[in-house]
Amino acid sequence: MSSFKYDIVKQLGEVSQSPKGWTKELNLISWNGREPKYDLRDWAPGHEKMGKGITLSKDELISLRDILNEMEL
Amino acid sequence: MSSFKYDIVKQLGEVSQSPKGWTKELNLISWNGREPKYDLRDWAPGHEKMGKGITLSKDELISLRDILNEMEL
Repeated sequence: MSSFKYDIVKQLGEVSQSPKGWTKELNLISWNGREPKYDLRDWAPGHEKMGKGITLSKDELISLRDILNEMEL
Repeated sequence: MSSFKYDIVKQLGEVSQSPKGWTKELNLISWNGREPKYDLRDWAPGHEKMGKGITLSKDELISLRDILNEMEL
């Protein structure tokens, strides 16, 4: 595995929690010291392991918010 | 690679488009004939290839929407 470091700059919210305690979270994360990106991802308790996720730009978050607000949820 | 099939049940919105024409989209997708899930993912033009993405439940979409609405974007 390649080595990388990350820094959770800001925790923005928890989207869900699994029975085993993993959480799906929206965070602002800096990868390898680069400019932070928004990140939607599963995490083990205490952020000890990370699961699958995607990064998003601010513009993408705004678009996503607008799409969600137009849906009947 | 394993074989699977998917059916884009409903296209809910386009979050962004890359210079090469890939789009990040929110869709409702049925994987291997199972109950459809919400899916946030990158796609090549015409949905010919799929990129990285995550699936979300309805409850997760609602939580995500509420988090996004509380942020200053």
